[in-house]
Amino acid sequence: MGEVKKGYVRPLDLKQGRVDMGHGAGGRAMAQLIDEVFARAFANEWLGQGNDAAVLPAPAAGERLVMATDAHVVSPLFFPGGDIGCLSVHGTINDVAVMGARPLYLAASFILEEGFALADLVRIVNSMAAAAREAGVPVVTGDTKVVEAGKGDGVFISTTGVGALPAGRDIGGANARAGDVVIVSGSIGDHGTAILSQRESLAFDTEIVSDTAALHGLIAHLLELVPGVRVMRDPTRGGLATTLNEIAVQSGVGISLEEAAIPVHPQVEAACEFLGLDPLYVANEGKLVVICAAADADAAVSALRAHPLGTEAARIGEVIDDPNHFVQIRTGFGGRRMVDWLSGEQLPRIC
Amino acid sequence: MGEVKKGYVRPLDLKQGRVDMGHGAGGRAMAQLIDEVFARAFANEWLGQGNDAAVLPAPAAGERLVMATDAHVVSPLFFPGGDIGCLSVHGTINDVAVMGARPLYLAASFILEEGFALADLVRIVNSMAAAAREAGVPVVTGDTKVVEAGKGDGVFISTTGVGALPAGRDIGGANARAGDVVIVSGSIGDHGTAILSQRESLAFDTEIVSDTAALHGLIAHLLELVPGVRVMRDPTRGGLATTLNEIAVQSGVGISLEEAAIPVHPQVEAACEFLGLDPLYVANEGKLVVICAAADADAAVSALRAHPLGTEAARIGEVIDDPNHFVQIRTGFGGRRMVDWLSGEQLPRIC
Repeated sequence: MGEVKKGYVRPLDLKQGRVDMGHGAGGRAMAQLIDEVFARAFANEWLGQGNDAAVLPAPAAGERLVMATDAHVVSPLFFPGGDIGCLSVHGTINDVAVMGARPLYLAASFILEEGFALADLVRIVNSMAAAAREAGVPVVTGDTKVVEAGKGDGVFISTTGVGALPAGRDIGGANARAGDVVIVSGSIGDHGTAILSQRESLAFDTEIVSDTAALHGLIAHLLELVPGVRVMRDPTRGGLATTLNEIAVQSGVGISLEEAAIPVHPQVEAACEFLGLDPLYVANEGKLVVICAAADADAAVSALRAHPLGTEAARIGEVIDDPNHFVQIRTGFGGRRMVDWLSGEQLPRIC
Repeated sequence: MGEVKKGYVRPLDLKQGRVDMGHGAGGRAMAQLIDEVFARAFANEWLGQGNDAAVLPAPAAGERLVMATDAHVVSPLFFPGGDIGCLSVHGTINDVAVMGARPLYLAASFILEEGFALADLVRIVNSMAAAAREAGVPVVTGDTKVVEAGKGDGVFISTTGVGALPAGRDIGGANARAGDVVIVSGSIGDHGTAILSQRESLAFDTEIVSDTAALHGLIAHLLELVPGVRVMRDPTRGGLATTLNEIAVQSGVGISLEEAAIPVHPQVEAACEFLGLDPLYVANEGKLVVICAAADADAAVSALRAHPLGTEAARIGEVIDDPNHFVQIRTGFGGRRMVDWLSGEQLPRIC
């Protein structure tokens, strides 16, 4: 992806131009797209090596490698609070960071639909590059393919992240134990509600904005103060409910939630009611679920609240013994209901 | 992606069933698809961790990390000699291996089209798993998304590979020097011709079979005998011609080829003639371009020929001084012609 002179007749028309099949064919047109859109936006020394793979410093001695990948097919491509570009950076950084790892590098592959506006591509790539820069995690290698009109949907972006995990750190979905406390870093349902409002052209009094954000800074701050955190996960597709069910099964425990304690913005609650959705199942892209020992819980909530991305952090429930590995919730009226896995397709193409 | 019991009512119908939007929604249907298709095929301890990211042993002290990514959109999905599944494993392993690195891990993300036959998905995933097993490079983490019918094309697969690069090894497109020798590991044009024959339903006397293969074994064998190799690359999209033009620009040199020395299978030559293609521009998926010092050339050709994937290896040209960084070829009739970059879209969706 190095910027080298390859005899382009004229620069790409980044205002009126469109993606054509030649942009994915491996020849001069593709080289030009890479030079004038991708390499320019992502500019860094690794990408500048110009080979099919990047050569990178490895994690330090004693550290382990962490690897995560995500395909992004969100529709619409642009939504309040973000777009597929920054989302594809945040989502993969978060998958690496919730293991307790320091995200190091991203790889990105693009599947473009013939006819897609180059201006939209540039906007997306620039958003991606800005998110990567802000997070301090460079896009070091990439790939571009083009499919015929009607065989794709504008742009799909797959990102893969690698990170370095310090020796001795053990955070994962299987580590929750009865008596632990469940914490969420802020209000739930923002991302999915923002997407769906946009898709359905719904207008609410207050615009609902996606919470898409890279969480590795928040996580680093938390782990500095509470190194004994047992589980972290970002509750994306399927929402908080599905994430907690996954953890319950992995850890062989039950989870009991307090409905009143779960932060939900009033406009999200109203939109969900209108749309017939339960915020517990709606995707988040900048929230963190933390499970830690009861003795660490106050410190963890304080640590999260002291960071700009965790000001609304709250203790929302506890881990219990349950051979069925159920998640249940105590409602405002003192009753209890089961919080099952998401069934069906509630919100397709949410990320 | 761990295989855990989540209360599925009945197993997926892997014979008659089809992908639906719920398989990408993050809930129980997706968990079931992952458990019964992906986790079963790829089964390994890393994937079995069941988190959103895999925790892996890092490269050894002193080694560097190599990272490459590729989106695969080949059409048709099944072709003589392979399918999108094994291709997506081979392609990414090769991008890592040509840097001189030992491929360690793969990540895979799938974009499925609603309505895609689960039987075809299983066939593809099993082919991918077999290729990964044969190569000794496990798929350690993954992701699945589903798009509506008419917004995709069956299945797209993005794979990302990481590898470990020994200290002191420096192989890359910028290292060619005037006087070096250009070698190819075997006949060119097989993959692209196989795809196009299939797509156009052309029948030739002899079926043309894709050369899709993982090259890291061949490369390890070569480097053991000729550690001083300067450039390696797998000439995929754009073919040998485009790959050599890239290297010429990166290294600031010219390249002179001998047409008669370039191995092309007779049936590929005939098919290309029929289709109006130049084999120099047709994609390969299991061939290696090697550039090394003239003093190493005989040893390199011998080393390649001693490996099953390099039996037809040949010296095909040399690196020359050329301020224009042109690639030229001496034809059978003693003339010379320029070998330009691929222009246009010769072969869309070839990989």
